[in-house]
Amino acid sequence: MSVGDQIYDLLKRLWPINRSITGKGVRDSLEILKEYIPDIKIFEIPTGTKVFDWIVPNEWNAREAWIEDPNGRRIVDFSENNLHLIGYSLPINKKISLDELQEHLFSLPNQPSAIPYITSYYEKRWGFCLRHHDRQNLVPGIYHVYIDTTIAPGFLTYGELVIPGETDKEIFISTYICHPSMANNELSGPCVATYLARWLLEKSFKRYTYRIVFIPETIGSITYLYQNMPYLKKHVIAGFNLTCIGDDRCYSYLPSRNGNTLSDQAAQHVLSHYAPDFKKYDYLQRGSDERQYCSPGVDLPIVSIMRSKYCEYPEYHTSLDDLTLVTPSGLYGGYSIMCKTIDAIECNTLPRVTYLCEPQLGRRGLYPTLSQKRTDLFSFKTVKIMMDCLAYCDGFHSLLDIAEIIKTPIWVLAPIYIKLRNEGLVRDL
Amino acid sequence: MSVGDQIYDLLKRLWPINRSITGKGVRDSLEILKEYIPDIKIFEIPTGTKVFDWIVPNEWNAREAWIEDPNGRRIVDFSENNLHLIGYSLPINKKISLDELQEHLFSLPNQPSAIPYITSYYEKRWGFCLRHHDRQNLVPGIYHVYIDTTIAPGFLTYGELVIPGETDKEIFISTYICHPSMANNELSGPCVATYLARWLLEKSFKRYTYRIVFIPETIGSITYLYQNMPYLKKHVIAGFNLTCIGDDRCYSYLPSRNGNTLSDQAAQHVLSHYAPDFKKYDYLQRGSDERQYCSPGVDLPIVSIMRSKYCEYPEYHTSLDDLTLVTPSGLYGGYSIMCKTIDAIECNTLPRVTYLCEPQLGRRGLYPTLSQKRTDLFSFKTVKIMMDCLAYCDGFHSLLDIAEIIKTPIWVLAPIYIKLRNEGLVRDL
Amino acid sequence: MSVGDQIYDLLKRLWPINRSITGKGVRDSLEILKEYIPDIKIFEIPTGTKVFDWIVPNEWNAREAWIEDPNGRRIVDFSENNLHLIGYSLPINKKISLDELQEHLFSLPNQPSAIPYITSYYEKRWGFCLRHHDRQNLVPGIYHVYIDTTIAPGFLTYGELVIPGETDKEIFISTYICHPSMANNELSGPCVATYLARWLLEKSFKRYTYRIVFIPETIGSITYLYQNMPYLKKHVIAGFNLTCIGDDRCYSYLPSRNGNTLSDQAAQHVLSHYAPDFKKYDYLQRGSDERQYCSPGVDLPIVSIMRSKYCEYPEYHTSLDDLTLVTPSGLYGGYSIMCKTIDAIECNTLPRVTYLCEPQLGRRGLYPTLSQKRTDLFSFKTVKIMMDCLAYCDGFHSLLDIAEIIKTPIWVLAPIYIKLRNEGLVRDL
Repeated sequence: MSVGDQIYDLLKRLWPINRSITGKGVRDSLEILKEYIPDIKIFEIPTGTKVFDWIVPNEWNAREAWIEDPNGRRIVDFSENNLHLIGYSLPINKKISLDELQEHLFSLPNQPSAIPYITSYYEKRWGFCLRHHDRQNLVPGIYHVYIDTTIAPGFLTYGELVIPGETDKEIFISTYICHPSMANNELSGPCVATYLARWLLEKSFKRYTYRIVFIPETIGSITYLYQNMPYLKKHVIAGFNLTCIGDDRCYSYLPSRNGNTLSDQAAQHVLSHYAPDFKKYDYLQRGSDERQYCSPGVDLPIVSIMRSKYCEYPEYHTSLDDLTLVTPSGLYGGYSIMCKTIDAIECNTLPRVTYLCEPQLGRRGLYPTLSQKRTDLFSFKTVKIMMDCLAYCDGFHSLLDIAEIIKTPIWVLAPIYIKLRNEGLVRDL
Repeated sequence: MSVGDQIYDLLKRLWPINRSITGKGVRDSLEILKEYIPDIKIFEIPTGTKVFDWIVPNEWNAREAWIEDPNGRRIVDFSENNLHLIGYSLPINKKISLDELQEHLFSLPNQPSAIPYITSYYEKRWGFCLRHHDRQNLVPGIYHVYIDTTIAPGFLTYGELVIPGETDKEIFISTYICHPSMANNELSGPCVATYLARWLLEKSFKRYTYRIVFIPETIGSITYLYQNMPYLKKHVIAGFNLTCIGDDRCYSYLPSRNGNTLSDQAAQHVLSHYAPDFKKYDYLQRGSDERQYCSPGVDLPIVSIMRSKYCEYPEYHTSLDDLTLVTPSGLYGGYSIMCKTIDAIECNTLPRVTYLCEPQLGRRGLYPTLSQKRTDLFSFKTVKIMMDCLAYCDGFHSLLDIAEIIKTPIWVLAPIYIKLRNEGLVRDL
Repeated sequence: MSVGDQIYDLLKRLWPINRSITGKGVRDSLEILKEYIPDIKIFEIPTGTKVFDWIVPNEWNAREAWIEDPNGRRIVDFSENNLHLIGYSLPINKKISLDELQEHLFSLPNQPSAIPYITSYYEKRWGFCLRHHDRQNLVPGIYHVYIDTTIAPGFLTYGELVIPGETDKEIFISTYICHPSMANNELSGPCVATYLARWLLEKSFKRYTYRIVFIPETIGSITYLYQNMPYLKKHVIAGFNLTCIGDDRCYSYLPSRNGNTLSDQAAQHVLSHYAPDFKKYDYLQRGSDERQYCSPGVDLPIVSIMRSKYCEYPEYHTSLDDLTLVTPSGLYGGYSIMCKTIDAIECNTLPRVTYLCEPQLGRRGLYPTLSQKRTDLFSFKTVKIMMDCLAYCDGFHSLLDIAEIIKTPIWVLAPIYIKLRNEGLVRDL
């Protein structure tokens, strides 16, 4: 089975679970991921823990939730679609008029067939989301609303997988596991992250250590930073927030706040060759955990490579962001570009020539011995890359810088550079 | 009466006076300004004083000047329009032929109905300016020319008003009072400066001290710099040369030589939001006292915010630059944008967050507690500005920098920033 | 006779000689140049000398070379055109079949009437180049091939002329003398270099010392650098690789690797005023001795000002690059722009005003004493340049920087600057 199909299968397994920022849904999801990456470690942070300006909220669990209409018909049922229930809804069991009910209903007049995704983590509320055209058919009368949930002390749960490399310098990957049944935003992130982890585990040589975290958005990244910031600040050289990486429509890039980190350079280099029409967003259009990772004083080098970016596609945060929106090829495209970007960072180096002037490539069999009219040299593309690479191995330009200058993908340049290094003509500083 | 009308009224009072770089006209003008800003101090610098490469020239005063034609008709009379007499004309009382007279006449063939404005401060001459179509009607014969002027030792006169603020850091405003009866260039500058002074005097809190000088152009700014440069270099953080700020046709900006001072940043920020079509000139198009203030080694941060810039409008330096060219609304527009620019500098600061990661705005009532689909959040513009502002409060970006980055006028951003500061989430470095 | 005609005459004298990277052709050519610049010193480096990663190859000399067809007719003869023989061909005297001969023949199917220029300096071979339409007429049969050459220990020969100036800071000019009978690439370079040397020798005042080298390409510049690099690194402030500077079609510029040296600035300044349509190439399009001079660790400030650049014109490296392609006016254009560029560097300085504020130019007769309407001042272009120059004489901008800022050719600016310096208003730092 292709990697794309495998990622899609994992996504389908995780699909029905009702996740939120805390609770059983997160634990169940992490248990499934553990089957794929057994070394993942699960952490449980007690609710009420103070993390920077925040407090970890009580744990929320939902078992059942529905509305019966005046005729006793269940018109909205959490067991059919977990988006029907507002995240962190309080429990209730009451018969109320349509007017009173309306104050607790949410729908999208502009997308009448979509159930919106709504949460109220920090303000006590109850409510239901439903399709606007269903809402319009509601008749006056007495409705029975039933919500069986608990909000109580417990834990915030997250997973962390560390894959050691040759050095303790780290590439950090973060994805979130707090969204209920939506596909691109967000099951694509943890599913692609899981398969990236498997690819990294199988990779024979890794210069860098990889740290992959599966956390609830916002409160999770804040909690994780609260616990690990000094270590991360010291070791992380590049990082990625994995989100919205499963549909087939486009590639997108959201820079770090700094805009000029190694992650930014690698992501843009790879995208410019691999998906030259990619959409480049501005940091002002941020909306996920880079808000924490790149915040003043934290300033980790975190960017996002995405397919269709959150907020920017019509199905976003609705029931239409479903299993038909993400595809095996969409997921594979995201996975694949992440692999290439990681490889770009792995093979990056700071090279310097060992000789002054051009070396004599001819006697090493690396240069044509017959000097012909140069415009005929179309077949000497490799020689041209070799000469251009040598021209910039000055100890000031990284291999990624050189790849940019000479307009050559680093995956074409790197093997040529290695040949030069094997000949002793250049060395890594 | 509106502020625009008040400024226009002051301009009309100053209009008839014959000003030059020295003499009674300057003193009379400053006496009128003293009625509006009583704390203005008048300085008298003896003629013959050496100031850098210059010497303050003798004082010039003009009482009467006319030409009578062969029929005894006064065809040119200084009492009708003081532009008729070349500035610093020598006295004369003589009957001469038309041919001889022609050598002392100046007119504009391309603007036949305009009297040109001409001076000869440093070369002894006499001469008259007149409308070209009047000149063309002159008949051969003997003309009587009469000029009753004195050029004699005396003083160069200027005014200075210092308005103290919380700190001794200063915002410097310079304008010139050496032009006879012309309106945009130049009575608009001293009139707007006077009303800016009144606005500053009434302002309850001023972080900075304001120094407003009313000087003759060139020799006046050179003299003022000669006397005050070490103090100005140490205290002035921003400054403005007020000129050509009274007509209604456009807004203009002339940068400092440096191009990147706080004055440049504030002026461009305010103009880009307030008058986005403003004309941005180059320092090579300079022509007023920034020539001295920005000269090598002086290098004060002085820019000009103007309406129609000197040299760039057809009425410039002619009798057509009159009371119909400037308008109450034109003057008010200039005044108003200067107030906004000063406010921008007053509220600028170097902010830094007090917490790591985003703060929890929700529990402070600053963030919606219900997380809905983001594209619906058009009503949350203030929240977006708040989050974007926090994202850049890193101790490296000033509030003006942040306003530029997040494309928000500082007058919208500043109150939001103050709210954050009152919550203890940011502080001024 | 015009300078262009003189350069062209020299080129015609050098034309018939068979040059290569070593051998009699180089020596004969240098002997001719010695007639024009008697102080040129000839250096002989023993073959086998190790120079950085290279070894100076054995000396090659060719006396005779031809092919006779089955009918005994000489169909290819080195004495007719020295491009017929591949550079560094081994000697041979043999009768062979057409099939075997074909393996040693080179022609250009796309340019059937051109003899290509081919060399094999470092791989032992023999071969002939011919017009493709001649090759197509070859009939089966036995051919007699005869090559009378020697490849044997000897010397690499080059010339060097040092023209002392007021200081030991140097401007370095390099050109190559290794190409057989081709005109633009390359006899234009050494011929223009020779006349530049004569112009420099006649020039009364030279701030800088000039070092002009006539070397074989690649191995020659590597050898020269091997011998002189520490001195060059310490003394060379600007330099030019002279090549392809003889035709009439365009002007071209190839930057240094750094891209921002004094040579780059001067070349672009002069070209932008003198030949504003000049073609600006990228360092990736390099192909001559800047490959060595600008290599990492060497990093000399060497650029090329060319007419039609190597690799970019159809006649390049063929027999069509002949005496009809270069012209006296083409050579003179290249010579002339090089003179202007050298002059630009010679008159460059770091100026600073001696007074604060603008000086009073009027009393020095440098400024109109009558202040008229400025838009009439079209005749005061010199005054404008003077004022603008003074405005930037701040000790941070060189005269070339100022020329760029005020958009004035340095040959217009420099005399005005000198007038200001003579008045004591500015000084060179």
